[in-house]
Amino acid sequence: MKTPTTALSHHRPDAVFYRERNLVEDILAPGSDPDFTTVMMEHILGRAVSPAERRVMNAILITMMEHGMTPSAIATRSVYMSAPENLQGAVAAGLMAVGSQFVGTVENNSRILATILEAPEEKRRVIAEGIVDDHRSRKAHVPGFGHHLHFPEDPRSVRLLQIGEENDIGSEHVAALRLLSEVVDERARKHLTINATGATSALLGSMSVPVALMRGFCVIGRTAGLVAHVAEEQQRPSGRFIWDLVDKTIPYEA
Amino acid sequence: MKTPTTALSHHRPDAVFYRERNLVEDILAPGSDPDFTTVMMEHILGRAVSPAERRVMNAILITMMEHGMTPSAIATRSVYMSAPENLQGAVAAGLMAVGSQFVGTVENNSRILATILEAPEEKRRVIAEGIVDDHRSRKAHVPGFGHHLHFPEDPRSVRLLQIGEENDIGSEHVAALRLLSEVVDERARKHLTINATGATSALLGSMSVPVALMRGFCVIGRTAGLVAHVAEEQQRPSGRFIWDLVDKTIPYEA
Amino acid sequence: MKTPTTALSHHRPDAVFYRERNLVEDILAPGSDPDFTTVMMEHILGRAVSPAERRVMNAILITMMEHGMTPSAIATRSVYMSAPENLQGAVAAGLMAVGSQFVGTVENNSRILATILEAPEEKRRVIAEGIVDDHRSRKAHVPGFGHHLHFPEDPRSVRLLQIGEENDIGSEHVAALRLLSEVVDERARKHLTINATGATSALLGSMSVPVALMRGFCVIGRTAGLVAHVAEEQQRPSGRFIWDLVDKTIPYEA
Amino acid sequence: MKTPTTALSHHRPDAVFYRERNLVEDILAPGSDPDFTTVMMEHILGRAVSPAERRVMNAILITMMEHGMTPSAIATRSVYMSAPENLQGAVAAGLMAVGSQFVGTVENNSRILATILEAPEEKRRVIAEGIVDDHRSRKAHVPGFGHHLHFPEDPRSVRLLQIGEENDIGSEHVAALRLLSEVVDERARKHLTINATGATSALLGSMSVPVALMRGFCVIGRTAGLVAHVAEEQQRPSGRFIWDLVDKTIPYEA
Repeated sequence: MKTPTTALSHHRPDAVFYRERNLVEDILAPGSDPDFTTVMMEHILGRAVSPAERRVMNAILITMMEHGMTPSAIATRSVYMSAPENLQGAVAAGLMAVGSQFVGTVENNSRILATILEAPEEKRRVIAEGIVDDHRSRKAHVPGFGHHLHFPEDPRSVRLLQIGEENDIGSEHVAALRLLSEVVDERARKHLTINATGATSALLGSMSVPVALMRGFCVIGRTAGLVAHVAEEQQRPSGRFIWDLVDKTIPYEA
Repeated sequence: MKTPTTALSHHRPDAVFYRERNLVEDILAPGSDPDFTTVMMEHILGRAVSPAERRVMNAILITMMEHGMTPSAIATRSVYMSAPENLQGAVAAGLMAVGSQFVGTVENNSRILATILEAPEEKRRVIAEGIVDDHRSRKAHVPGFGHHLHFPEDPRSVRLLQIGEENDIGSEHVAALRLLSEVVDERARKHLTINATGATSALLGSMSVPVALMRGFCVIGRTAGLVAHVAEEQQRPSGRFIWDLVDKTIPYEA
Repeated sequence: MKTPTTALSHHRPDAVFYRERNLVEDILAPGSDPDFTTVMMEHILGRAVSPAERRVMNAILITMMEHGMTPSAIATRSVYMSAPENLQGAVAAGLMAVGSQFVGTVENNSRILATILEAPEEKRRVIAEGIVDDHRSRKAHVPGFGHHLHFPEDPRSVRLLQIGEENDIGSEHVAALRLLSEVVDERARKHLTINATGATSALLGSMSVPVALMRGFCVIGRTAGLVAHVAEEQQRPSGRFIWDLVDKTIPYEA
Repeated sequence: MKTPTTALSHHRPDAVFYRERNLVEDILAPGSDPDFTTVMMEHILGRAVSPAERRVMNAILITMMEHGMTPSAIATRSVYMSAPENLQGAVAAGLMAVGSQFVGTVENNSRILATILEAPEEKRRVIAEGIVDDHRSRKAHVPGFGHHLHFPEDPRSVRLLQIGEENDIGSEHVAALRLLSEVVDERARKHLTINATGATSALLGSMSVPVALMRGFCVIGRTAGLVAHVAEEQQRPSGRFIWDLVDKTIPYEA
């Protein structure tokens, strides 16, 4: 088998390199004010990142961070209560909920936007109609639309798309998303909000983040949120209460 | 059982709140240029964060992100190769390696620094000597010192401590760490580097991060690094090679 | 939202029930010699289990347990070395490798067998040919066939299918699998072994295990194997060696 | 670094070996009726296992399997709802709750029993008194005693200890556990039940399972229980209900 290589890092006794840069002498050099978001994007994507891209990514990471007592937070708190010696395990348990049902829709939405954008402009509406009709015939949700808590608009996606616009990021992908949204509403005969994963998909797509990697940025943002849930669990424990609540509320029935 | 409360988040159909701030109207407000590091620190710690603290935290997150083919990267790559549909599981597997043997030493070092700092200044050296002697009598490493790859100095900790100094963060904790370092070297009759977890412990301690939460910030930084390993695995797969390499190199012996 | 119910368990101060049985008075009653495999199958499947089914399941669990230094074992050992205080995290990390690329093929093979078995007997070969041709046109492996280490036969699947036969389990599903195997060989113009996941799929399918649950039994078997890797890691540590080996063997290349 | 070895497994194109036995020709040989519990114990412990040991281990695995809507089950169900494509991740999330607060007490109880058994018989009560008094002075629970749901006795531990007795397993360790129990009750001036982890500790200890490995057998038993929770979640989904319940019940408070 051919030996693979890595471009991510190498080290010497006196240095660590992140791709081609010396961590200490280049990235953390005096006067450089390095920013985690930028360094992380450059490390993951393997290319320079503009201030506009940094601003958009900051908004995405911040938005993905928190939404209260979600399944991922419940998993993290349940595990932390049982194994507080193992903070990383509690965070890891919650991260595993960043799967197909919520965040994973970023990827499916992104594939739809890519299909629309591959077509010449005058055919895009017909393509979008075909996609929406296909989902409806399978009684499937169109990924990126609708939210069980936020309506008529998911305020996060409205603002994320504005931030894209303010930074000249995403105009083409956002246009495809808005076109898709029009068709979704038309066929449903009611308004369905563009949700946060829909907006995220358009913005990440326009920054050329590969579809299979999009979920990774959601994972980074959510990790910070789950650390906050651990921090609160240390001060206001809820794990045992949740256990008792669930055990008492869900009855036994043969 | 008394019902616990949460201060982290609440939501309305038209808004999500992060602690007391409206995510969209306050944190992501037009003209605000919000920064993930700052927002995340404020969310986790429940207090305002200064630009100096942000700069120091950025340096810590960036430093914790990457160190090449570590056990956590190997776990992430092995799992990703086996279940590429499940990026978050691969990252979670790698995060579980952020445990007692490497990053967890942040906490033990921090407890030692706290013990030293509780004493009046003139007694601190004696306290430090007692701690080092106790470790030596148990043939235990003093946490925060020594590195199997970086010597005579871990370049990351040298720079992290400078960044603390440049930002007026950590002077008292760093003084305790340097005192401890002197005693470590004296007793060992050779120089042992202050490693990255030692420097991180002093800086996080001086920003009043609770000891039990310190590991959480290392987890956030490392998450980004593990996403980079997934990204590279998508382009230059190594998982099957690692499997073959390990299987062939470690022989069977009854 | 309608309150769900659970049939799995309820408890009183003086008793725990597993479905409708009292754990202590019924399952563990004196003279009962209860068997983990049987109790576990009955608990998961919600029905009585025959001795023949127990024997077949034992063979599957045992077969899924171990295959040396696989990606899941490497992940478990890497995490255990880094966080030995956290045995369950090391096992959990390795379990996450029980995904689509290896064990998940059980499910895809099972769906193919179900499609074949839905057809009247005289049409099954044509259906199988259509499925194999479709895979070949997409350059996809037919799930359940081929093994990179075991050839011309995977000895495990040969024996598993025999055990099914000895216990009168699986004749219809095994017939469908053998038919599929004939077509696979014919089209490939060479012999491809039925692998262990192919045999497992046929046997679990014939015991009416739902497709979406099949992976669960593989997880149970593999858990035991990963505990064995932890046990060996406690006596003959390999984690640091694996780290060093991988780090040195995979070169940096920008 | 010296190359480590493995005794667990090796393979040839035509065979897989579990330690020194050929999986197919020895373990699964015709007429052998192999049992998962026995094979798994022999694989993990590296020694032959008696029928008595098998019976006791079966009882332990079965007992560790299930206790309804525990934190581990809640974590598994929350993750499964969010990522149903990833059964192994849901099970892994729940396993991470097999930590210090519940199952981990097996290890601490075992260390206490070992300390008592190291002393000559006439000094054991004094040793036990010292240990209990030390815990009480630190306001710490003595591990292995008390249960928030089961009283005055945990029916599981009563039966587990009987099963030990019926199989001539554990007499010395159980005697130490009963002595400790007497002292616990005497000092507390009330009866505290020996709980399931206390009984498990005595039985595993008497089978010479290393303390650091005890948790592994609890993990195996619990894995089966978590697969049952996934199976039920497939038929009677509760994850979204739990989310809603916890989100609505725990109020926001700044």
